[in-house]
Amino acid sequence: MKIAVNEHILNLSENYLFTEMKERISAKKFIEGDLVDLGIGDVSLPLPAAAVREAVEAAKGMAELSTFHGYGPENGHEFLRDAVARYYACDMGAAVSPDDIFICDGAKSAIFSVLSALGDAEVLIPDPAYPAYADCAAIAGKKVSRLRVTENEGFIPVPSLPKTKPYVIFLCSPDNPTGTVMPRDIMQAWVDFAMVSGSLIVFDSAYERFVKSDAYRSIYCIPGAELCSIEVGSLSKSAGFTGMRCGWVIVPEKLMQGNVSVRRIWRRRVGSCYNGTSYVVQRAAYGALSDEGRRECVRLCDYYLNNAAILKQAFSKSGYTVFGGTDSPYLWINTGGMSSWRFFDHMLDKAGIALTPGCGFGECGEGYVRISALCTMDSALLAAERMGRI
Amino acid sequence: MKIAVNEHILNLSENYLFTEMKERISAKKFIEGDLVDLGIGDVSLPLPAAAVREAVEAAKGMAELSTFHGYGPENGHEFLRDAVARYYACDMGAAVSPDDIFICDGAKSAIFSVLSALGDAEVLIPDPAYPAYADCAAIAGKKVSRLRVTENEGFIPVPSLPKTKPYVIFLCSPDNPTGTVMPRDIMQAWVDFAMVSGSLIVFDSAYERFVKSDAYRSIYCIPGAELCSIEVGSLSKSAGFTGMRCGWVIVPEKLMQGNVSVRRIWRRRVGSCYNGTSYVVQRAAYGALSDEGRRECVRLCDYYLNNAAILKQAFSKSGYTVFGGTDSPYLWINTGGMSSWRFFDHMLDKAGIALTPGCGFGECGEGYVRISALCTMDSALLAAERMGRI
Repeated sequence: MKIAVNEHILNLSENYLFTEMKERISAKKFIEGDLVDLGIGDVSLPLPAAAVREAVEAAKGMAELSTFHGYGPENGHEFLRDAVARYYACDMGAAVSPDDIFICDGAKSAIFSVLSALGDAEVLIPDPAYPAYADCAAIAGKKVSRLRVTENEGFIPVPSLPKTKPYVIFLCSPDNPTGTVMPRDIMQAWVDFAMVSGSLIVFDSAYERFVKSDAYRSIYCIPGAELCSIEVGSLSKSAGFTGMRCGWVIVPEKLMQGNVSVRRIWRRRVGSCYNGTSYVVQRAAYGALSDEGRRECVRLCDYYLNNAAILKQAFSKSGYTVFGGTDSPYLWINTGGMSSWRFFDHMLDKAGIALTPGCGFGECGEGYVRISALCTMDSALLAAERMGRI
Repeated sequence: MKIAVNEHILNLSENYLFTEMKERISAKKFIEGDLVDLGIGDVSLPLPAAAVREAVEAAKGMAELSTFHGYGPENGHEFLRDAVARYYACDMGAAVSPDDIFICDGAKSAIFSVLSALGDAEVLIPDPAYPAYADCAAIAGKKVSRLRVTENEGFIPVPSLPKTKPYVIFLCSPDNPTGTVMPRDIMQAWVDFAMVSGSLIVFDSAYERFVKSDAYRSIYCIPGAELCSIEVGSLSKSAGFTGMRCGWVIVPEKLMQGNVSVRRIWRRRVGSCYNGTSYVVQRAAYGALSDEGRRECVRLCDYYLNNAAILKQAFSKSGYTVFGGTDSPYLWINTGGMSSWRFFDHMLDKAGIALTPGCGFGECGEGYVRISALCTMDSALLAAERMGRI
């Protein structure tokens, strides 16, 4: 007899999307500068100076007895939780208490952790969606249902299900991969749906800072959301923290399941299974959320949004139907009848452009591709030029 | 109807050990310098200069396009995995492949993550033991059995169970909380037990660098361990990383459960639910594992071991039976008939010394207390002086 492994992991598909992409790209043996990579959503610009200054000072302080920091609170240092609360108040118009904010090392870990704090539950995930939702839910042993979202609804998920049972509902706006922004009335409908059905919304706000229109940027801008929603925030895209690693989970005090405080459960889970985010990283995040840092983050996002506009124009001009690219660093392209992988190969062959096949985000992504504008402007311009030629 | 929370979290005891200790200490209203805190196991000395230099350079580089780092591999940067492998080879005489090393943010997160990668399994945890093992196992939905370890066996867990079913077995040496070092022949017996029973050992090596005798420091020094063991390593105590946060999980290629490669399962789990450890933190760890860094770590550990010797002598002289304190930063004291909490209150009242009640580590810890020597030498000397007086 042997110890059983988590069979849900065994059942996940072996080749993760980005691994397969890397293999197909490396098989082409591009020479330096020939490939325009609009595939993986990593940022291309360095971090705000204000974030780096804080990180450097914090790191230097670790060498001195008087400024050295050991274990911090598992939920994050107060200075950072206060800064996140101020950010929500000032930039998003959302009232969030520092006591409801739990600092973590990024959204991906947070998604799994949140699921592990819940019991038996059916997890509802839009199709297409960020693959980590479904993978984490499966690994956490939850039943996963996909909500089909198609071009007919403009790639906006709508709560058209019977309200007879509760779900854990993953929503992301601006969305990865489709780049669409869920209108306020539809988000309100989701909150209402959650209240009636007893559901819990997990809102992924990783791309909130790309919103330039007057759309809400936190789910807590929607009345009632604090009664039924957890929000997962991240500095990865908006502050270039993909390598620095910092995010947060917001669990409002008012969020109850029956007579159980979800925040109490979550606090216990964090205390037992996490030892806090690196002090140096928390100071970097503090810098990114300072007045200067936030101005620099706006500049970073504007740069990427300019790329998105360049790419949107180029693909539209070539006759493709394009979603997203406004209030979002992602574009979602209808391939015009080709399969996602065939279009991937086609673009790689003809234009030396790497995209992400839409089918990697769910069945309804088949026939689409995602384009990331988190590249350099040179890459965006080069891609646009090549699109004009083919 | 509502979403169920993880009921195992509901069933955990509400007041975590260290919270209760903090409350009792703060109720005494000590004035600055009056309390000697030998309770919580946080380090008191700053990080090695070599670690800080690397962290500072890495943080500075995050501001420049040419040296900025975005997403890294989920299992950690190659430079650090190579450094950990070299450390095992040079300092511990254990052969570990960089491909088997997964960098993480510390042992506590790693323990939960490892458990979540396993299926239905009975988890065997010594009593007393580090509370995170049992809490993480319960939250992960595993059945927990405790293996009673008492003064009769010198607080060394021995594999005296029937070999008829497999367990996930947590072992820690040098041990937290008892400070005991498991002799090589008993560790070999555990490996043999695991092989025959189909068990999986999770070895916590967080305190390995305190071993000055010729005892093994990694479970992979024990023949056969690579077929049945995962090792969780940490820089928290040995390099002062409690606030910096870096550790690793080692899953050997040869570790199979039936015909399933545990490393393949683990790699998929890490890829789906983790986005890698902060680049700045990984560079700090790289510095801590350099030649200079390792020399500095030895100096740090020697400092704490000197504290341990001072405290061991003081408590022995006062007539207490003391375990640990050699090859370990922890001492384990028989209170001489008082309950753990009563002795805690007694020491706080009479000597202004904070300890950790042994009952917080399991039933068999009742009647004992843990003393941490990870304090400053001034604190150790002051504690010794006060022990002489009472």
